Amino acid sequence: MDIKQSRFGKEDTICAVATPGGSTAISVIRVSGVNAISIVNEIFTPYSGKSFQEGPSRMMRFGHISKENNLIDEVLVVSFPGKASYTGENSAEIFCHGSVFIRKEIMMILFSKGVRQAMPGEFSMRAFLNGKVDLSQAEAVADLISSETSASHRVAINQMKGGFSKELSQMRSKLLNLVSLMELELDFSDEDVEFADRDNLKTLLVEVRSHIERLIDSFALGNVIKNGVPVAIVGATNTGKSTLLNSLLGEERAIVSEIHGTTRDFIEDVVNINGTAFRFIDTAGIRKTEEKIEIIGIERTYEKIKRANIVVLMLDSERPDDFTEGVSKIAEIISSSQQTLIILINKCDTVNDPERESELLREVNNIAEGKSLKPFAVLPFSAKSENSVSVLKDKISNAGEVSDIPSDAVLVTNLRHHQALNLALDALVRVEEGMIAEAPTDLLAQDIRETLFHLGEIVGEINTEEILGNIFSKFCIGK
Amino acid sequence: MDIKQSRFGKEDTICAVATPGGSTAISVIRVSGVNAISIVNEIFTPYSGKSFQEGPSRMMRFGHISKENNLIDEVLVVSFPGKASYTGENSAEIFCHGSVFIRKEIMMILFSKGVRQAMPGEFSMRAFLNGKVDLSQAEAVADLISSETSASHRVAINQMKGGFSKELSQMRSKLLNLVSLMELELDFSDEDVEFADRDNLKTLLVEVRSHIERLIDSFALGNVIKNGVPVAIVGATNTGKSTLLNSLLGEERAIVSEIHGTTRDFIEDVVNINGTAFRFIDTAGIRKTEEKIEIIGIERTYEKIKRANIVVLMLDSERPDDFTEGVSKIAEIISSSQQTLIILINKCDTVNDPERESELLREVNNIAEGKSLKPFAVLPFSAKSENSVSVLKDKISNAGEVSDIPSDAVLVTNLRHHQALNLALDALVRVEEGMIAEAPTDLLAQDIRETLFHLGEIVGEINTEEILGNIFSKFCIGK
Repeated sequence: MDIKQSRFGKEDTICAVATPGGSTAISVIRVSGVNAISIVNEIFTPYSGKSFQEGPSRMMRFGHISKENNLIDEVLVVSFPGKASYTGENSAEIFCHGSVFIRKEIMMILFSKGVRQAMPGEFSMRAFLNGKVDLSQAEAVADLISSETSASHRVAINQMKGGFSKELSQMRSKLLNLVSLMELELDFSDEDVEFADRDNLKTLLVEVRSHIERLIDSFALGNVIKNGVPVAIVGATNTGKSTLLNSLLGEERAIVSEIHGTTRDFIEDVVNINGTAFRFIDTAGIRKTEEKIEIIGIERTYEKIKRANIVVLMLDSERPDDFTEGVSKIAEIISSSQQTLIILINKCDTVNDPERESELLREVNNIAEGKSLKPFAVLPFSAKSENSVSVLKDKISNAGEVSDIPSDAVLVTNLRHHQALNLALDALVRVEEGMIAEAPTDLLAQDIRETLFHLGEIVGEINTEEILGNIFSKFCIGK
Repeated sequence: MDIKQSRFGKEDTICAVATPGGSTAISVIRVSGVNAISIVNEIFTPYSGKSFQEGPSRMMRFGHISKENNLIDEVLVVSFPGKASYTGENSAEIFCHGSVFIRKEIMMILFSKGVRQAMPGEFSMRAFLNGKVDLSQAEAVADLISSETSASHRVAINQMKGGFSKELSQMRSKLLNLVSLMELELDFSDEDVEFADRDNLKTLLVEVRSHIERLIDSFALGNVIKNGVPVAIVGATNTGKSTLLNSLLGEERAIVSEIHGTTRDFIEDVVNINGTAFRFIDTAGIRKTEEKIEIIGIERTYEKIKRANIVVLMLDSERPDDFTEGVSKIAEIISSSQQTLIILINKCDTVNDPERESELLREVNNIAEGKSLKPFAVLPFSAKSENSVSVLKDKISNAGEVSDIPSDAVLVTNLRHHQALNLALDALVRVEEGMIAEAPTDLLAQDIRETLFHLGEIVGEINTEEILGNIFSKFCIGK
């Protein structure tokens, strides 16, 4: 499909606010497309020197944008002509005061000149379509922007700089060379020559397969690095889940109140513990309720718990009668083999009696054993005590340890890449099986072509408008 | 007080993220101070051409920022040396990917080079201290950024361009000229000469006084333009207040549920109705409750209602027994002479019977009369009907009409300016009274000096660190 003819309108000039948010010191408005510089030239009056269009490119120019003789704002403006820009086409950037009203007015003026609002990721898509980056590099820009830890940043920036693309390109050129030789054989099929040495072919296939497998395996780690190890904080209402989350985050994030059922939406936040990102999920309290909003919350809680790597169950030391129910609920939901369970007996600061604490600990351990649960740890706890929280952090860190990653490691962090690699692997396995069964060369060549196709999808050598639309719609506006 | 010696550390090089927010396409980091350009030069490696420091100023340079050989980001960087910058001192701006992690890393690198985090408004304060703008112009920048309507934008940009400063400066130079002549008289007091013609003095005083009075009067309008006409939406729980607010805003802003007492915090949002900003305040439902959070909410509701220009009381047509209580509550709180009351009988779509509607209307009107209330309007209503909402908007628009403002009007929108003008006026009235009482020249001169002092405070001719700290702390970070 020719993207130039598509609904993305590659010939349009597009604009977007690249720095959203309410009132900020500065806002940046990006304009890109064949008319970007001439249109900004029409709306911008420099305070000195040549016109915007005739002035030097990449130079910050001071002046104003007005509408019907009313000053809208004093701004700085810069032009990036042609190939030198991020998008690989004429671009301009407007730096105005970060006012909601001013942003809106300037965008409206641009619209009136025939510029249209960019779709999410459309600037990066143009960079891809204009050959400035390949698809996996463009995707890395979105990952880079959303990266919050050193590890996820490192993986994204490596991918943006082309590390992943390079590995893929090496594999592809090897396979491409081979499949060309095989197809040459087909042209000379009457003469029974073998241009492609079958032993070389086997060696190469094993090599490429193990490389693809390594990349596929890296996804488990890559995904955790990108999104954090999921940790669900679970328990009946009013056991102190939100207080714990606040202590972990070191700030007042969840509303804590003494009223049951306060947490109605999931609050997820990432905490760095010893260099690893953990994504903590504060779930709605599990209790019988007639409140509609809460019922929805509780149903979603079960889903969240099932998907967490680590489950932290909170019990209230002041309500030992509820222990059995709490532990039983968890036993129903989690699969003990895959998930790490940590049980906290909270509010032990109010108990303040070592003997009673030991008693409570024994009780919880017994209940867990009765339910065939093997908790990673059962701890007397106080969500308000720094010491308690620090012990818990160590336990979580041990349970969710991520092995060291070399600084130039290529890790797959993108679900789309993971799926494409799996499809490439399937096709490759068929090639190997075909060789053992002495399948005809044309069938083998076809499966190698399929492997190439799926590897090509990752960097965007093969693409459809649908795939592109899907990828870039997840970007922020203005990128 | 010498600001250079103060805790603001004018000699420091400061930095701030000028575009806050989570993950965005672009982030801008501002650096200002004597070492701004040389420090950015140390951390930035251009991909081509001269070093950042030696390269052309105001030119966007492409390159990277790294830490211990790890690439942090590819960035654009620009320098504004000396007087040409916003702050009037060496400045640099870094345009990086809008990632939380990258912003943090770059800020940390700057800190390690001795740059410190700027305080809110510190860039604008430096612009003021370096003589780039006066104080009222600097304050207008903050107003400009927070302006959300055409009217508030116009007033702010006029002030930023120096409209208000010019009026003040004219008044001050007239008074200054006069007081100089009076003080000359004092030097020659033995000789009984009058350098300052008393008739001229009187004319001038009247002129300046009426000018100051006009500015003071403009504050009522200026404040409404800046912040919107406050409209409180009030009523028992579950009468549809949040639904109405959503209809007015045209988006799902407040959480609407069928559960009583959902709205716990005030939701304020500004809606443009026929060119005027109205600030709608969705209040907590008034009902008896034991919930702690709600009790606080209800107490704050009373305060909000008292301060609103327009009060919209919502009654539920399905609960006519509650009418009396609802109207009585409002009668206790509002002062009918100052505030406009609009009563809505909501959910009339479920009644769907014109006769019953008329009956309900009569009932409400009778109750209101019994409580000596004179509502501006009593309307059968449906918060979900576009037509109903449109009728309400017209009523609100009529009740809160703001007269037309000429495009170059100087309006006082700032409480600090309003207070200074009032103090200036007090001193001026004392001068006039003194003249009638034939007070000695030195006393008159002293009061004129006080008038000058308060007018000077507005533009910052007279300032203390405390005043400056107070003003600029209300700015956004990075401005």
